[in-house]
Amino acid sequence: MSLLIRRKELDFLLYEWLHIESILDKPLFAEHSREIFDSILDTAQKIAEEKFAPHAAEVDEQEPTFDGEKVHILPAVKEALDAYIEAGFLGIHFGEESGGMQLPYTLSQACASLFYAANVSTAAYPLLTVGAARLIESFGNEEQKARYMQPMIEGRFFGTMCLSEPQAGSSLGDIRTKAEPQDDGSYLISGNKMWISGGEHDLSENIIHLVLAKIPGGPAGVKGISLFIVPKLHVNEDLSLGEQNDVSLAGLNHKMGYRGTINTALNFGENGQCKGFLVGEAHRGLFYMFQMMNEARIAVGLGASVLGYTGFLHSLDYARNRPQGRSPEDRDPTSSPVPIIQHADVRRMLLAQKAYSEGALALGFYCAKLVDTIHTSTESEEKKELSLLLDLLTPIAKAWPSEYCLKANDLAIQVLGGYGYTRDYPVERFYRDNRLNPIHEGANGIQAIDLLGRKAMMKQGAAFRLLLQKVHGTIANTRQWATEQNNEAIQEYAEALEKAVETVTSTTLALSQVALQGKSKLFLANASVYLDMLGHTVIAWIWLEQAWAAAQKQHGGSESEGNFYEGKLQACKYFYRWELPKIKQQAQLLESLDDTCLNMPESAF
Amino acid sequence: MSLLIRRKELDFLLYEWLHIESILDKPLFAEHSREIFDSILDTAQKIAEEKFAPHAAEVDEQEPTFDGEKVHILPAVKEALDAYIEAGFLGIHFGEESGGMQLPYTLSQACASLFYAANVSTAAYPLLTVGAARLIESFGNEEQKARYMQPMIEGRFFGTMCLSEPQAGSSLGDIRTKAEPQDDGSYLISGNKMWISGGEHDLSENIIHLVLAKIPGGPAGVKGISLFIVPKLHVNEDLSLGEQNDVSLAGLNHKMGYRGTINTALNFGENGQCKGFLVGEAHRGLFYMFQMMNEARIAVGLGASVLGYTGFLHSLDYARNRPQGRSPEDRDPTSSPVPIIQHADVRRMLLAQKAYSEGALALGFYCAKLVDTIHTSTESEEKKELSLLLDLLTPIAKAWPSEYCLKANDLAIQVLGGYGYTRDYPVERFYRDNRLNPIHEGANGIQAIDLLGRKAMMKQGAAFRLLLQKVHGTIANTRQWATEQNNEAIQEYAEALEKAVETVTSTTLALSQVALQGKSKLFLANASVYLDMLGHTVIAWIWLEQAWAAAQKQHGGSESEGNFYEGKLQACKYFYRWELPKIKQQAQLLESLDDTCLNMPESAF
Repeated sequence: MSLLIRRKELDFLLYEWLHIESILDKPLFAEHSREIFDSILDTAQKIAEEKFAPHAAEVDEQEPTFDGEKVHILPAVKEALDAYIEAGFLGIHFGEESGGMQLPYTLSQACASLFYAANVSTAAYPLLTVGAARLIESFGNEEQKARYMQPMIEGRFFGTMCLSEPQAGSSLGDIRTKAEPQDDGSYLISGNKMWISGGEHDLSENIIHLVLAKIPGGPAGVKGISLFIVPKLHVNEDLSLGEQNDVSLAGLNHKMGYRGTINTALNFGENGQCKGFLVGEAHRGLFYMFQMMNEARIAVGLGASVLGYTGFLHSLDYARNRPQGRSPEDRDPTSSPVPIIQHADVRRMLLAQKAYSEGALALGFYCAKLVDTIHTSTESEEKKELSLLLDLLTPIAKAWPSEYCLKANDLAIQVLGGYGYTRDYPVERFYRDNRLNPIHEGANGIQAIDLLGRKAMMKQGAAFRLLLQKVHGTIANTRQWATEQNNEAIQEYAEALEKAVETVTSTTLALSQVALQGKSKLFLANASVYLDMLGHTVIAWIWLEQAWAAAQKQHGGSESEGNFYEGKLQACKYFYRWELPKIKQQAQLLESLDDTCLNMPESAF
Repeated sequence: MSLLIRRKELDFLLYEWLHIESILDKPLFAEHSREIFDSILDTAQKIAEEKFAPHAAEVDEQEPTFDGEKVHILPAVKEALDAYIEAGFLGIHFGEESGGMQLPYTLSQACASLFYAANVSTAAYPLLTVGAARLIESFGNEEQKARYMQPMIEGRFFGTMCLSEPQAGSSLGDIRTKAEPQDDGSYLISGNKMWISGGEHDLSENIIHLVLAKIPGGPAGVKGISLFIVPKLHVNEDLSLGEQNDVSLAGLNHKMGYRGTINTALNFGENGQCKGFLVGEAHRGLFYMFQMMNEARIAVGLGASVLGYTGFLHSLDYARNRPQGRSPEDRDPTSSPVPIIQHADVRRMLLAQKAYSEGALALGFYCAKLVDTIHTSTESEEKKELSLLLDLLTPIAKAWPSEYCLKANDLAIQVLGGYGYTRDYPVERFYRDNRLNPIHEGANGIQAIDLLGRKAMMKQGAAFRLLLQKVHGTIANTRQWATEQNNEAIQEYAEALEKAVETVTSTTLALSQVALQGKSKLFLANASVYLDMLGHTVIAWIWLEQAWAAAQKQHGGSESEGNFYEGKLQACKYFYRWELPKIKQQAQLLESLDDTCLNMPESAF
C-alpha cells in the first residue's frame, strides 16, 4: 500500500465529491478526458514513489552546503527533478500555446500532493518555478514570456520569489531593495533578500528571480513596490545564456525542516551591475503578487495537509503492526500483546489525524476547484461571487491546515512513541517540515487579520454571506436526503452545523459592530481565535459534504470501498463530536471582546 | 538579563508562595538556612550559564558518534559536568552520611531547572546518575551503597536506567531480559535494552546500569521483574576498577531532539559473561522503580516546563527588539515600524507561553515540596494523605507540562517567524528537545489511564477528594481575602475555579459509575480528555494560588517587582479567560461516554 496518498482518496475527492470531470465541458479542457486525468495521476504517483520518496530522508540529513564558491546538493535531487520535467509536470497547468498540458488547476494540485507527500523539499523547486512562471504569464510582456517563462516551463530555468528582506518579512511595505531606471529601459537592482528558496544551485541552467523592489520617488509603503525579473545569467535573444548578472549568494539559512530545499540570503547589485526588468507597470508589484497569493496560500495549506495525511498513513501502518500492551479487560499477563491500533487512545490519535488531514486536504481541493471554475466561467456574476468566496476561504485554507496538520504530525510521532522520535522513521521529519507552514506565505497571525479585518468584512460582508449561502445549501440538501434515507448520523451533523453557523454568524456580527465603531485594535485583537472558530466551522462543512458523498456510496461497492466510506463517516463523526463543539467557547471569548492580550503591559511580561 | 529562568521567578515560587524556608524547622534540614539556599542557587545559575549554556547549540549539531570502537562526545560536555560535580550538585539531595549536601528536594529541583534551561542534553547525565543512585540508596544493601552509590554521588561513576527493550516500551511486563542465578549469589544477565540514555561514554570512570530483568521461573508479567546493578566495569572491594563486564553497545539512536545526550541500544551478556547484582528482593523490581516514579515523572514535567519557560524568555526578548509592522490604527506607511511586542497577536503568543510555562513550573515545584513534606513529616496521617495527593498529581505534573510547554515552544517559534525556524536561534531546538517529554517516562496516554483508571478512583476516590479539599481551601481563602480587599479579579477567578471544580467533580462521578459497572474499555476510552480537563483545573488552581501570592505583594515594592506581580496577575487572567473555559466541552464529551474512537473499526481507518 502506498503511504503517500491513497489513490482512492484522490478519486473520491476529485470525482465522487467534486465531480471535476464536469469541467471537461469547458472549451479550455475539451481535449481532455477522465482517462487522461487518471494516467497523469498514475505518472505522478510513479515518479513520486520512485524518484522523490527514496532520497527524502537522505536530503534531510545531508542538506545543501556552500563551500564559498559553489553550492552542493545531493545528486538524487537533480535526478528526481529531471524525471519530473521530462514527464512535463512543470507545464501541467500552462496553456498549450506555451507548451503546457492545459490541465485543470485542481488536477495539478492533486499531482502536487503526491510529490509533497513523497518529498516536500525536492518538490519545492518546481513549485517555486511554476509560481514565478505564472507571474510572468499573467503580467509580463510577450518578450518576457518568450525569454523567461518559456524556458521555465521547459525546465531549462528554475524560478524564485524574492519578497522578504532581513528587516522586512511580514511587512513588505518596508522593503529597501532599490530599482533605479536606466536609459535602456532596464533597472539597476540593489538590495538584500532573505529566505529565498532555490536561490542558488546547479539544478537548472539558469535561475530567474522574481524580485520586489522600490523605484526611487515612488509612493511610500506597499504602493511603491514594483516587480522585476532578475536573471542569474543574462538571457540572449536567441535564448542562449549570456554573462553573469550581479546576484550573489550571501549565505545559506539552516532550518529545522525543509532542509533539502536550499534556502538563501541573496545580495543584488553588490557591484552595481545587477539588471532587472520591470514586469507590468511600476508600483503595481504587490498587486501582481496578491493576484497569485490565493494560489500560493492554497498550495501551502495543501502541502501542510499532505504532510498530515502521509504522517497519518505512516502511523496507521505502525499501529497495525506494533504489538504492545493488552486490553483493559485482559488481566492475563501471559496472553499475547495486541497491535496498538486496538487501544482506544491510539485510535483517538489516528482518528484525529484522519479528521484533520482529510478535512484539510478536501478544503484545499475545494479551493482548487474554485480556481478552475472562476477561470473557466463565462458568467461575470458567477466569476465575481466565486472569487469573493475564494478570497474569504484562502486565509483559512492556508492557516487551518498548517496548524492542525502539524498537530496531526505531532500525534503521528506519539503513536510511534520512542521510535517516532528517531530519524529512523519519517514522522519526525514531517513534523519538522510542516512547522514551516504556519510561518511562510503570510504567518498565521497575518492570515487571521486578513480574514477578520478584510475578508469577512469586505463589501459589507458579501463574501461571508456567500459562504453562509453555500453552507446552508449543504445543510438543506443533506437534511432532506437524511430524512428520506432515515440517516440519523447525517441528520445529526446537519443540525450541529446549522447551530455552529448561527454561533459564527452572531459572533461575526458582534465583531463587525466593534469595527464600525472604529475600535480597530479591539476588533482585531483576538483575530486568531476568529480564524480558528471559522476554520473549524468550514472544515465541519467540508466534512459534512464528504460524509454525504460517502453515505451515498457506502453500500453496494467492494469491501475495501465500503471500508473507505465507513472511515469517512467515522472521521466526520469524530470531527462533529470532538472538534466542532470547541467553537462555543471561542465564540464566547470573542463576543466578550476580551482584552487580556491587547492590554497586557509590555513591562509585565 | 538571564534567559534561563528569572531569579525573581525562583524566589517567588520558593519563598513567597511555597515558603520553603519553613522546612528549615525540620531536623533533617536544621543546619541549613535561606542564605545557603540562595548561594546554592547562585552557584547553579553561574555553572548553568558559564558551562552548560555555551555548548548547547553545538552539542545539538554535533551529536555523539560511534566509530565502531568508541563513542565520541563533544569535550565541552565533560568540562561542564566536571564543574557540576566539583560544585557537589550530584549529592545535593543525598544525606550527609553519603557525602551529600542533604538539601531539600525542592531546592534540588530549582537547581535542576537552571541546568535544564541552559542545556537539557548535558543536564541529562547527572540527573540519570542521581536517579540510579537514589534507587540503590532506597533499596540496595550497605555493600551496594558503598561500592556503587557512593562513587556515583562523587561523580566517579555515572548511572543509567535500563527498562525498555526493542519489543517492550510501554508494556514492561513483556520484557525478555533474563537473569540466571549463579552460585556466588550474582546473576548472569542476558538481553537487549533500548533507549538507554548515557549507555556508553567516557564522561566518567565507570557506568552503573540499573537493569530490569526476569529471573526464570518467576511470575509472568510485571510481577516477575527484578532489579539489578550491572556495572560496565567491575568494581573491586577497594573501589578500584576491575575488568569489563559483558555489556556492549549495539548502536546509537538518532533522535529529533535531545541530540546531545547519547542514547543507546545495549546488549547484555552477548558472551554469556554479564554479571548483575540483585537489588532488594527478587520480583520486586517494578515496585522499586515505581517508588522512584513520582520523582522521575515530576522531573520530566519540570524539564518540559523549563524548556517552555526559557523559550518564552527568548521569544520575549526577540519581540521587544524586532521592529515590524504598525498598529492597525496607524495608516501612515512612512511611520517607523513598532517592536512586534506591541501587536496583540504577539502578546497573545507571549502570554500563552507565560501562562503555560509558569503554571507548569509552579505545579512542578508544588509537587517537589510535597516530596519534601512527605519525607520530613512525622505524622503518619499527614504522610499518608500527602502521598495520596502526590500520587494523583503526578500524572498531571508529567503530562500537562509536556503537552502545553511544547505548545509554548511552538508559539516561541511563531513569534520569531522565519528566524525562529532556523538553527541560528535556540527556540527550534527547545521545541525538538521538548517533543521527547510527552513520550518518555510513561507516554502521556499511559499517564491518562494511570490518572483516571487508578489514581482518581483509588481508595474510593480518596486522593481525588484530598485534591478537592486543597482546592476548596484555596477558593475559600482567596474569596475571603478578595472580599476584604475588594479585589474583583481574584474574586472572579475564585468563582470560576469553584464552577470548574463542580464540573470536574460531576464528570468524575459519572465516569466512576461506568467503572463500577465494569465497562472498563468505555470507562478508559477517553482518558486523555480527562487528564486534559483535570490538568487544566489543577493549573487554574495553581494560578489562583500564584495570583493571590502576587496580589498580596503587588504594592509597595520596587517598580520591577511591581511589574513581576502584575505579570503574574495578567497571566492568571489569561488562563481563566482563555483556557479554563475549555473544560466545559471536555466535560460534556466525557459525560456523553462518546465511543467514536473506541468503536472505530480497524478496517475503516
